[in-house]
Amino acid sequence: MNTEQHERIKCLIIGSGPAGYTAAIYTARADLKPVLYTGLLIGGQLTKTSDVENYPGYPDGIMGPEMMEGFHKQASRMGADLRIGFASDVDFSERPYKVTIDENKVLLADSVIIATGATPKLLGLDSEEQYSGHGVSACATCDGFFFKGEDVAIVGAGDTAAEEALHLSKLCRKVYMLVRKSNFRASKTMVHRVENTPNIEIMFNVEVKEILGDGVKVNGARLFHNITSEETKLDVTGLFLAIGHRPNTGVFSPWIDMDNVGYIKTKNCSTKTNIPGIFCCGDAQDPNYRQAITAAGSGCMAALDCERFLSAMEHGAIE
Amino acid sequence: MNTEQHERIKCLIIGSGPAGYTAAIYTARADLKPVLYTGLLIGGQLTKTSDVENYPGYPDGIMGPEMMEGFHKQASRMGADLRIGFASDVDFSERPYKVTIDENKVLLADSVIIATGATPKLLGLDSEEQYSGHGVSACATCDGFFFKGEDVAIVGAGDTAAEEALHLSKLCRKVYMLVRKSNFRASKTMVHRVENTPNIEIMFNVEVKEILGDGVKVNGARLFHNITSEETKLDVTGLFLAIGHRPNTGVFSPWIDMDNVGYIKTKNCSTKTNIPGIFCCGDAQDPNYRQAITAAGSGCMAALDCERFLSAMEHGAIE
Repeated sequence: MNTEQHERIKCLIIGSGPAGYTAAIYTARADLKPVLYTGLLIGGQLTKTSDVENYPGYPDGIMGPEMMEGFHKQASRMGADLRIGFASDVDFSERPYKVTIDENKVLLADSVIIATGATPKLLGLDSEEQYSGHGVSACATCDGFFFKGEDVAIVGAGDTAAEEALHLSKLCRKVYMLVRKSNFRASKTMVHRVENTPNIEIMFNVEVKEILGDGVKVNGARLFHNITSEETKLDVTGLFLAIGHRPNTGVFSPWIDMDNVGYIKTKNCSTKTNIPGIFCCGDAQDPNYRQAITAAGSGCMAALDCERFLSAMEHGAIE
Repeated sequence: MNTEQHERIKCLIIGSGPAGYTAAIYTARADLKPVLYTGLLIGGQLTKTSDVENYPGYPDGIMGPEMMEGFHKQASRMGADLRIGFASDVDFSERPYKVTIDENKVLLADSVIIATGATPKLLGLDSEEQYSGHGVSACATCDGFFFKGEDVAIVGAGDTAAEEALHLSKLCRKVYMLVRKSNFRASKTMVHRVENTPNIEIMFNVEVKEILGDGVKVNGARLFHNITSEETKLDVTGLFLAIGHRPNTGVFSPWIDMDNVGYIKTKNCSTKTNIPGIFCCGDAQDPNYRQAITAAGSGCMAALDCERFLSAMEHGAIE
């Protein structure tokens, strides 16, 4: 490989959510001179939300986009080299690892921290985009609290949907669980719990056709019954999507061990992947907790794991 | 057991560092009505530091005590019941779990989140207390950056001390590694790396007798050679302690699985301990990363693990 014309760096971070920026803060402070590429969605999922109340450190809450601007500023102040661009191709066959940015620029990196996150699956409605962060949410754990005492709906049929419905049932007056098919995908245990929660009403064979609102906030949903073809209006102030996430890890799949959904596997509760010097943090490796604060924590872990790796590498130790 | 006179709660959190407060924020928002007892050091280790620059969310940095006041305020605003007191005794033999506070008040809790942290071992010098956060630090990863280009010393002989010396060597002009005995406790690999780092100078059989300063900041250390009895002055602006941590877990030791140092063992990269319904997060279970942000992340994990446990319990599922 002709490496002459390529930029050579110690540590490359891919992704700009809480995990990526935290990895940047820590690696910059450790003088690893990290280069971070933002990925396609600068700031990650939080830029799609409005109020964030559960990230510890903002006693009065903060808006998602503003929070990520702060993370960006902090990583920049610590000396991280933050750049716009996405990883279009990677070659992890040997060190230094080769990462192509925007299909044209090639970087050679001794270590790579993958922090590309996951993308919530959407229904594909225009109204969904319009009311995102204003009644439409892909995280009941994050946003359920804002709908205390109100009536809400959750779309989904799997274990996560069931769990989030239970979470909402503690906070909301009524939870409509909208299932597209005539049965659940969730485990028997979880179905049992949902069925035995008085303020959860399960509606089978139901699809959301449109999210209704006053232009600012959600006030209902237009439903379609896919057996009877009947259309009804449901009065809800919140609509939660729990139809799954897609980890943004496709480009790494020829090299990195993943589960069948595409979540990257990490070793022994660290951020190490199957390839030494390639680390993964944040939602790209976490189907379980998926919070800004857990992503940030794992970004720090990746930075420390990476620092130890580079230290071992410099001293000729093989990992 | 006569349980009539005891306060009965769903979720008890013990400890008030980043892990405890984050668990409180999340459990409060999930309407688990958490009660948090602060432990003996309100706000945890961070109240002993000054500037914090590596916690993502404070672009311009923040003082440790101020940061923990913010966490307290946020947990309180979310509805957590925050109280001063420490767990003086526990009985985890059956549910509800029995926790005695301040040797007199007994609580019965369906679930317990242990977030009691760890205490860095100190040298036991008056000057050490005086300059804590002003040149004396127990965390090179956190504070090394503040000593860029300066001369510093690190006390310790184990793997962590070696790793922190290597971290400092990237940032500081000179790093004196002060070892009390005539040999290292660290692994051969780590000793090899330290020995092969040009700007680390290892001094064996050396003890710190006094930390010197101008009343505001450290400017040196008085050393004692325990073979020759010679006393010398070392010009350094930072003194790092890496002589170990003591997890604050003694009260739980009859019940909870721990390693030989006292770090609580958690299962499958979750916060679950060997007893269902008892969770552990933060430094009490982390000998490896020990950062505010990783502690906060694991506090969130504990809250979500706890919420799932209580949901299963309420629905009669046995865990």
